[in-house]
Amino acid sequence: MSPAGDPKAAPLPVFVAVDEAGAPWARAVHPLWPEATLVVPESETDEGRPAALRDALTRAGEAGRPVIGVGSLDGLVRALAPLVGTLAEPLALALAPEARQVLPVLGDGAALAAVAEALNARLSTLDQALAASAGGAGAGRLWVVGLGPGKAAWRTPEATAALARARHIIGYETYVRQAGPFREDQVLHTSDNRVELDRARHALTLAAAGETVAVVSSGDPGVFAMASAVLEALEASPDPAWHAVDLEIVPGLTAAQAAAARVGAPLGHDFCIVSLSDNLKPWEVIEARLAHAAAADFVMAFYNPISKARPWQLGRAFDVVREGRGPETVVVLGRDIGRPDERLRLTTLGEVRPEDVDMRTVVLIGSSTTRRLPRPHGPDWVYTPRWYGSAHATS
Amino acid sequence: MSPAGDPKAAPLPVFVAVDEAGAPWARAVHPLWPEATLVVPESETDEGRPAALRDALTRAGEAGRPVIGVGSLDGLVRALAPLVGTLAEPLALALAPEARQVLPVLGDGAALAAVAEALNARLSTLDQALAASAGGAGAGRLWVVGLGPGKAAWRTPEATAALARARHIIGYETYVRQAGPFREDQVLHTSDNRVELDRARHALTLAAAGETVAVVSSGDPGVFAMASAVLEALEASPDPAWHAVDLEIVPGLTAAQAAAARVGAPLGHDFCIVSLSDNLKPWEVIEARLAHAAAADFVMAFYNPISKARPWQLGRAFDVVREGRGPETVVVLGRDIGRPDERLRLTTLGEVRPEDVDMRTVVLIGSSTTRRLPRPHGPDWVYTPRWYGSAHATS
Repeated sequence: MSPAGDPKAAPLPVFVAVDEAGAPWARAVHPLWPEATLVVPESETDEGRPAALRDALTRAGEAGRPVIGVGSLDGLVRALAPLVGTLAEPLALALAPEARQVLPVLGDGAALAAVAEALNARLSTLDQALAASAGGAGAGRLWVVGLGPGKAAWRTPEATAALARARHIIGYETYVRQAGPFREDQVLHTSDNRVELDRARHALTLAAAGETVAVVSSGDPGVFAMASAVLEALEASPDPAWHAVDLEIVPGLTAAQAAAARVGAPLGHDFCIVSLSDNLKPWEVIEARLAHAAAADFVMAFYNPISKARPWQLGRAFDVVREGRGPETVVVLGRDIGRPDERLRLTTLGEVRPEDVDMRTVVLIGSSTTRRLPRPHGPDWVYTPRWYGSAHATS
Repeated sequence: MSPAGDPKAAPLPVFVAVDEAGAPWARAVHPLWPEATLVVPESETDEGRPAALRDALTRAGEAGRPVIGVGSLDGLVRALAPLVGTLAEPLALALAPEARQVLPVLGDGAALAAVAEALNARLSTLDQALAASAGGAGAGRLWVVGLGPGKAAWRTPEATAALARARHIIGYETYVRQAGPFREDQVLHTSDNRVELDRARHALTLAAAGETVAVVSSGDPGVFAMASAVLEALEASPDPAWHAVDLEIVPGLTAAQAAAARVGAPLGHDFCIVSLSDNLKPWEVIEARLAHAAAADFVMAFYNPISKARPWQLGRAFDVVREGRGPETVVVLGRDIGRPDERLRLTTLGEVRPEDVDMRTVVLIGSSTTRRLPRPHGPDWVYTPRWYGSAHATS
């Protein structure tokens, strides 16, 4: 192990910090990396700054030093736009919202790229930066962000980046808390309001006013979560300002994947995910789907399995599946997977009872081929083989 | 924006670098942060080092400075175990495999935690570190890692951490390349060998010999990928050493989620994922499942839709679905989503042809309720509402 690494491993980046107007910041000294910082002389006139910037960036380009631009994309673009064509391309440019978020990094360009990504910075050429800034100028941005299930290690860098870029964070209180910590300049709009459309409209209203907004969902916002609610609210609105919002869906791991990973690979073969909530769809539809899923021998994941308002549906669902699948069928109950109080329980279709399940539990029901094998420490492994029936595994 | 941030914002961490034997490293100076580094005097005797370490860590604890231990968990534990009980608990301890990976971070403890996580470091107390080191001593470790689809911003910190911890990386050549870059001390076992069981056995053999191994899959290893193959190989083996391996499945975003996020929220309601590959299951099974899925009005995602060896199956699959769903049904074709040459195409069940699809394409077929709405820049949004049939959205 090299205890100190090798600072020479990569050319030092050059920092360029600019204000919103794109004026290079005179005191843009990175506290941990002064020698890597571009200092634009205090005495420099506004007119003179672009020239000073060009000279410095030209030197950086010649030395193969990547540039970390500290500030907003708009600010950076304003500062760099006058230089387009006067600089050797491609000039590696990483944008970081705030100097305090810039982590000096040892290692190669890939390492810098990784950090840039973690900062929601993008490594790009000036042209790409300009292109990126062109879209949605003025209009706000709205990210529908999937936090993933439970632990932060399951949250994508893209989601973390969106949370860092948004000034307004909107969501069900529990999820907003999970999404934190936030900076002082960020505004949290939490509620225990379960009406998703209200949150969606609130988010679109803010973004349409030019704000940067993140709506947070646990898991994947595209799976029984806020992404559909936001698009429903958008479609229902005639307001052109809403439709002009730069909207991005940021996917996340969904609960079934987390529970599956913990127990092995129950979703290793054809599967379906069904919400048992009949708040928004007739129970007959759900029951018909379960019957088809059972007949098709799909592995199944149940979302929203039970609640005070829906006490009997889960029991009925088990009965429907039992008509098409044996009592020895493996059932996995995953509660708060990825959270400190995570609970994983293995049972069978014959034994499982609605009382074993609560609203924070994801229910996985194996297919006819789903198997168990013992593991030394912890519950059995559960997996569904890639092969099916006669066609046994040879590849 | 504060261009320089505030180094005082957080107490400076203390670095402790140790060798495998747990001896504090005398030259453990972090190149970017010398003042934060604990230097154990060269003259210090091996016997004296624990004392010097204790004094330094005690000072750190009193000053509320987190400690970043540079080295292996084993090495750190050997160094710190003698100090348990002699230090004020909890002492925040972050482990980092290599000093070159340590990124000095400005900001609060949460920021440090984030970096620690990115480093596969864990913030923990000494007791937790000791507990963590207790398990799997001697036995190797095997991570089955999901890289997610395409871009690194969709790869979880947990996956990145596993790739950093493993000495051996095993996988199909394309995915190993995607998983990089790697360190000089890491061994890459790439192949264009499509026999997944061979790779699974190879991984288990290495891990059973005490090595740290990562098997990489694109997407989610638990969805038609390596996790099932590894568990199949494990179940088939009588070797106790294989079963003693500390095996962990590291989930990742799967292709359907990435394509769905790009186009909106087509998976916003009940859906199924079906592999069209009949290499390991009879085609009749697949066709029956598609018929049931169509009758159940599931949104569908097709994996492994077509290949040179399986030229006619996709066309047949479309025909089966057409029997249960109208020609205007929305179809989304997502190719290499998240990669530079990403292609997203919207069409309909009536128009889509097998020639529009290749093996790197994920096919999403909407349900009867899946909708399109125009977006200013780019293809229409596609989403499946949370409501179904008569029960229209009010929440």
